[in-house]
Amino acid sequence: MDAVNIEAMLARFSEHWAPKKIAELNDYDIKIVKVQGDFTWHSHADTDELFLVTYGALTLQTRAGDIRLGPGDLYVVPRGVEHCPRSDVETAILLIEPRGVVNTGDAGGDMTAEVQTLT
Amino acid sequence: MDAVNIEAMLARFSEHWAPKKIAELNDYDIKIVKVQGDFTWHSHADTDELFLVTYGALTLQTRAGDIRLGPGDLYVVPRGVEHCPRSDVETAILLIEPRGVVNTGDAGGDMTAEVQTLT
Repeated sequence: MDAVNIEAMLARFSEHWAPKKIAELNDYDIKIVKVQGDFTWHSHADTDELFLVTYGALTLQTRAGDIRLGPGDLYVVPRGVEHCPRSDVETAILLIEPRGVVNTGDAGGDMTAEVQTLT
Repeated sequence: MDAVNIEAMLARFSEHWAPKKIAELNDYDIKIVKVQGDFTWHSHADTDELFLVTYGALTLQTRAGDIRLGPGDLYVVPRGVEHCPRSDVETAILLIEPRGVVNTGDAGGDMTAEVQTLT
């Protein structure tokens, strides 16, 4: 019955590239993640992926060029588009995508993370 | 190829209770809306509805009690749950729900609004 405060949820963890679920919307998960450094090039064949930056600065590298996001900026990476997130400073992101989507998409590898739920 | 800044999009209109689409995520619309005063009691039988407050203060009245949201707070109203948004001050909200959902749900009436798209 209570609202979820994004800042308070972000204060509960410090690790990077480890998404936490904070809410559900039908069959979509609402997640937050802290990132810094380079992720891995990957794509999601079956779904778009929404990024909304809370603080910091995020570059979504794509084969067609970079998309730069600061606080309050959102961008939806279309399905099938290869992308590689990168942050020079610690950055917090609200992520929205269908439940079960793997963070590394088709690429797999060491940065693949299971989604934890914050309650 | 550019990110969408929520604050800049909010600066482009002033009317209340008139949602604007700013992005799409698969078959979901990402919308922003400015509100003040009382909306109408309604529910959506087929979908949850996500509210994320950007500025101001929002009360989501439900038959089971009020949910109060300030900036950075999000809440998902479950499908079928009657609710009536109310704001004493002007409040901006990011709304996410499947494309085609009518703002007044099952209630209809004067506050029913067609979604405009900001590009």
